[in-house]
Amino acid sequence: MKFSFTSLGCASALPTSDRFPSAHVLNVHERLFLIDCGEGCQMLLRKWGFSFLKIQNIFLSHLHGDHIFGIFGLLSTMSMMGRNSKLTIFAPEEFSDVLSSFLKHFGEMFKYEIEHRVLMPGGMHTILEDRKLKVSSFPLNHRIDCYGFRFDEKRPLRNVHKEFIDEYNLSIKEIATLKTGEDVVRENGDILKNEKFAYMPFKARSFAYCSDTAPFPELTKYIVGCNMIYHESTFGSDMTATAHSTMHSTASDAAVAAKKAGVEKLLLGHFSSRYKDPGVLLDEAGEIFKESYIAYEGTPFDILPESDK
Amino acid sequence: MKFSFTSLGCASALPTSDRFPSAHVLNVHERLFLIDCGEGCQMLLRKWGFSFLKIQNIFLSHLHGDHIFGIFGLLSTMSMMGRNSKLTIFAPEEFSDVLSSFLKHFGEMFKYEIEHRVLMPGGMHTILEDRKLKVSSFPLNHRIDCYGFRFDEKRPLRNVHKEFIDEYNLSIKEIATLKTGEDVVRENGDILKNEKFAYMPFKARSFAYCSDTAPFPELTKYIVGCNMIYHESTFGSDMTATAHSTMHSTASDAAVAAKKAGVEKLLLGHFSSRYKDPGVLLDEAGEIFKESYIAYEGTPFDILPESDK
Repeated sequence: MKFSFTSLGCASALPTSDRFPSAHVLNVHERLFLIDCGEGCQMLLRKWGFSFLKIQNIFLSHLHGDHIFGIFGLLSTMSMMGRNSKLTIFAPEEFSDVLSSFLKHFGEMFKYEIEHRVLMPGGMHTILEDRKLKVSSFPLNHRIDCYGFRFDEKRPLRNVHKEFIDEYNLSIKEIATLKTGEDVVRENGDILKNEKFAYMPFKARSFAYCSDTAPFPELTKYIVGCNMIYHESTFGSDMTATAHSTMHSTASDAAVAAKKAGVEKLLLGHFSSRYKDPGVLLDEAGEIFKESYIAYEGTPFDILPESDK
Repeated sequence: MKFSFTSLGCASALPTSDRFPSAHVLNVHERLFLIDCGEGCQMLLRKWGFSFLKIQNIFLSHLHGDHIFGIFGLLSTMSMMGRNSKLTIFAPEEFSDVLSSFLKHFGEMFKYEIEHRVLMPGGMHTILEDRKLKVSSFPLNHRIDCYGFRFDEKRPLRNVHKEFIDEYNLSIKEIATLKTGEDVVRENGDILKNEKFAYMPFKARSFAYCSDTAPFPELTKYIVGCNMIYHESTFGSDMTATAHSTMHSTASDAAVAAKKAGVEKLLLGHFSSRYKDPGVLLDEAGEIFKESYIAYEGTPFDILPESDK
């Protein structure tokens, strides 16, 4: 029951020889959600052992090259590997034209469907939902249309305490009722209270992605209570003016956002190439928000299932 | 007086985690000529220490993604680094539309001129020429319009033997005459024979790039007599049928091409991902043409100046 985030690239606009542009993988129960797709993404997916086949959904925050120039190679490689299952790309409206132009010149041999779902401005929107997960988009505060993404695991079905199954000779139907959270009322009038017979196997988990953005007050409500967030920290607070004039955040901004929203863990990335060692940014964030970490490329950050008995 | 070729990527269509798609640098007297621009090219230029500023000309052989998907990131990065000098891209006709679409969405801030010079079918064409170098394009034999490139160093000016300068009290004008290859006729009727007084400092050097292509007889005349060629060898001869049906070459094909054209050195690249160790391809080529080498990423292959006294 994995819920794990791995950055493939934590560079900002100017990649370096050992730091690639933005691309990240969120593994939710072995389904891989690709978040942004900077140049080199397909090579990095291979490097860190992520199967292309497990990717059905790609989320592109905005149309700056350092977040999308890897999409062309990835889509082409998926085609050459014989993909035939549909791929959904959530991206701003302008991406339609970019995708059309790409497919016109390079998509002749494609045998799989690519659906572009347009991200909508104006608050939080549910963009993907199934039995196990809900994904929402929300606006960020950047130079162009830019979106964050929040992944909320659904509350799992309740587990029935094994010792009661034999003791009370529970039927399959009764077990199913208890799993949904309801009490069981037997023909003889006995009531089997759900809170005695069943329990949540783990708490539902949540993660949010915030890049690129300058600080803005509404962010708090979009990411409130997440177990973990990724927040850009392009600069240190010595460069606050530059950060804000280019609609980016400092490490302090990221830490303040995490603290305000009451999240448990903050991952920092999207570092300017001027910071050869991003440790200085971590130190800065850590003073405001202790549970801050560098999203080093290839390092998985797991949100472990927490018992909810 | 460098004349040196370095491959940045020797993968074919499917890159691997440690083998990037086609991109190569030819250094001629410290001017860098970029040949093809696969995904990741800008990171690899940095990795191997090539200055973006020294690149004024890019040569794109054809419009398959593994040869051009790095151009978008590279052009964007050049812009962000403040480039203002013109960049010339030699590429097939269809590239105009790709470039326009790219600039429409991502080129708003560009402050430098990008000129697309269209490569022409039908034999060999001089596409760039100055005092020191001539570059020609020639057709290859691939599934789509595809071009090879030949770089011919111009004959250098002759050097005057130092010991004669004092002995004959040569004037600056006389030295200049000898450098051009002409004899000097003095007022007293003495003739200073050029072949005694001057010599070629080194032989003019030449390199040709042949990727992607199936074998074809006319190739010989395009690459005849080169000091060094890069020739694709996507497959081994166990896969000859596949190679030729996809309009590619085997290592044997590459070696035969090198031998027929009387070149001195053959560099192999563009390997299928099925060959984890391309040594088997080198062995195959080496049996036909001894001076065969793998164009390992980042390894410079210098054509040293050869004295022509």
